[in-house]
Amino acid sequence: MTALALSFPRLRARLDALAEIGAFQPGGVARLALTDADKDGRDLVVTWMRDLGLRIDLDGIGNIVGTWPADRYEPPVLTGSHIDSVATGGIYDGALGVLAGLEVIETVAAAGIDTEHPIAVGVFTDEEGSRFAPDMLGSLVYVGGLALETALDTPAVDGAVLRDELERIGYAGPSPCPAVPPHAFVELHIEQGPVLEAEGVEIGVVTGVQGISWTELTITGQSNHAGTTPMDHRHDAGLVAAEIAVGMRALAEELGPPMVATVGRIELHPNLVNVVAARAVLTVDLRHTDDRVLTAAEAALDSLCDELREREGVTIATRSLARFEPVQFDDTIVELVEQVAEGQGRSTKRMPSGAGHDAQMLARVCPAGMVFVPSAGGVSHNPAEHTDDEQLAAGADVLLQVMLELARTR
Amino acid sequence: MTALALSFPRLRARLDALAEIGAFQPGGVARLALTDADKDGRDLVVTWMRDLGLRIDLDGIGNIVGTWPADRYEPPVLTGSHIDSVATGGIYDGALGVLAGLEVIETVAAAGIDTEHPIAVGVFTDEEGSRFAPDMLGSLVYVGGLALETALDTPAVDGAVLRDELERIGYAGPSPCPAVPPHAFVELHIEQGPVLEAEGVEIGVVTGVQGISWTELTITGQSNHAGTTPMDHRHDAGLVAAEIAVGMRALAEELGPPMVATVGRIELHPNLVNVVAARAVLTVDLRHTDDRVLTAAEAALDSLCDELREREGVTIATRSLARFEPVQFDDTIVELVEQVAEGQGRSTKRMPSGAGHDAQMLARVCPAGMVFVPSAGGVSHNPAEHTDDEQLAAGADVLLQVMLELARTR
Repeated sequence: MTALALSFPRLRARLDALAEIGAFQPGGVARLALTDADKDGRDLVVTWMRDLGLRIDLDGIGNIVGTWPADRYEPPVLTGSHIDSVATGGIYDGALGVLAGLEVIETVAAAGIDTEHPIAVGVFTDEEGSRFAPDMLGSLVYVGGLALETALDTPAVDGAVLRDELERIGYAGPSPCPAVPPHAFVELHIEQGPVLEAEGVEIGVVTGVQGISWTELTITGQSNHAGTTPMDHRHDAGLVAAEIAVGMRALAEELGPPMVATVGRIELHPNLVNVVAARAVLTVDLRHTDDRVLTAAEAALDSLCDELREREGVTIATRSLARFEPVQFDDTIVELVEQVAEGQGRSTKRMPSGAGHDAQMLARVCPAGMVFVPSAGGVSHNPAEHTDDEQLAAGADVLLQVMLELARTR
Repeated sequence: MTALALSFPRLRARLDALAEIGAFQPGGVARLALTDADKDGRDLVVTWMRDLGLRIDLDGIGNIVGTWPADRYEPPVLTGSHIDSVATGGIYDGALGVLAGLEVIETVAAAGIDTEHPIAVGVFTDEEGSRFAPDMLGSLVYVGGLALETALDTPAVDGAVLRDELERIGYAGPSPCPAVPPHAFVELHIEQGPVLEAEGVEIGVVTGVQGISWTELTITGQSNHAGTTPMDHRHDAGLVAAEIAVGMRALAEELGPPMVATVGRIELHPNLVNVVAARAVLTVDLRHTDDRVLTAAEAALDSLCDELREREGVTIATRSLARFEPVQFDDTIVELVEQVAEGQGRSTKRMPSGAGHDAQMLARVCPAGMVFVPSAGGVSHNPAEHTDDEQLAAGADVLLQVMLELARTR
């Protein structure tokens, strides 16, 4: 191992600069994928990549990869993450992984270290999925999990189409996707959950990612007068949506951790105080590390819908928005992350990720792994998202050493 | 009693003409209060009033009263209703009462009948309350239940202010409100519920109106990542909204008919598939004929909110949008409606109204009553709202006779 040290103040300054783009309050960013704010964030990161003399490859779905040295084309040791956010996100989710990657490359380049494999940092398009479903769309296309042409047709929640938005912001590039697989991939990310902080652990050694199932349900009942329609004559789409939300909470409690179930979106029509709702659209987000349990949870949702159709006299149409099986990361990389962190004298914990990450897509085509740092209060997707500077620096240090080990100093 | 007969084809033609204004599909109208469609509807009704030579009085909240004979200023026997609709309403709710009133006056005027009291028909502003809360706002101001200046400041759900919209469509008039109380008031309306059709009865003799309680609840929790936040760490505003909707259904079933409870409006923020909702706004509509039961239902809602605040770690702010006590109509008018209908050989049923109506406001200042005709399938606030022509004609016949009895033919 080398005694190379990165510059945390430089990383901190880049985090703060990117945090100003799309800021809606201190600590809060709104950089939905392929919006003007996302474009401004990309422009800034690309400027930094150019300043470091990286070769910049832009592909057809808008993924950006900066490689060092610029003239080396073999499969690199790749790191990276995303800079898009949810509608009301924090400043570390994604941005940390991209900017720590940039810092690792700047540190290695400045020290003039010669590695067997080139090193690179990627910015993946639409990781959050808040504007275009599914999430992790850019990395999914990068590894060949979704055809580029199909991905480009994806509609946004605001009615735009991905292809048009990508062209509008000038980030449709010529590099092919799927891309040539990297030599290895490792991603630094905030935990976005409460476990590391609660247990006083500095580094999460991520063993894999929970499986994710997103379903959109459209319930059709009958709009009717709220005052004159006896309860047993109703076909209330809003009530059925509420029953599903309550039922999914009960299901998650029954199955126990790490099962999580969320109804984050509900829309009623006509959405008036004195009219029984004729139509409701809601989403159900189910996650578990064991695909059998996840599948059982999906079946329980189906059963609940059957029961509600029968009981309330409504129709319920379901549409899968995303379905990813649980992912196990490469044993060698998991062990390397653990050894490096412990070698630096840091406390570690092996843990699955509750959130989806670009690393799970890269795991399809190369050895992959992740490094987690704590999230204060487990809060993320929220302006209150916070990780202490020492914790951010610790994560970047682990990333630096892991990348150097994987790239093999010559 | 007189053998006067009204012209149903003329009434039918006016119903059909008004139904074209704001039509979004055959049988469906969108004439939210004080929109362009409402203005067009008012213009048409006012034209008909002018054609009949009525004196037209327009007051400060936009209520329109047409009186015959035009030169008589004593308190009239008043009928009427409203022509505003919910966002996706039917063509009879309100319009029937206004246009049957017009038909009654045309019939009496054409026959040259001299009555002791003048007769009049009113069009009351914003009965539905879909755009400006509370509902029955125009008649409430008409009887002095709400100060005109306060009512004019009412915000619309779309952000407009009542005063501006009323001026924009040119329906702020000089007549005072509160108005001089009429001699008596009787309103013809569709039942909007399933009882008359289910029991095969032609005429509903309305004994009173259910009390109404509308509450808006704003729940504040914490937005968080749907994948990484364990169920027991959540403060999910969306779940709490769903629990309230499910709880209100259970409450209504526990209290039994005529209790009805509706959550017709739910809005989540940020309303995304993978974010635990930070905030939810919903409305609860509770109705009962017995004010003690209605008050108990409101207390049960409060208790549920307390329980959810404690259990889920959220705040819940409540705001009353409307609160009307149950109304008992005047015994003499209830008996007169029953006698007239039975005298015409029609089947009758005494019943409370489940919906709020302008008649309940007029009941504060004069003897008042209502006549109901059946609603097919109990459906209303819906383009499928329907009443057979013979049933409409029967209701108008009863209204004619009741008004002649009240106005006393000389």
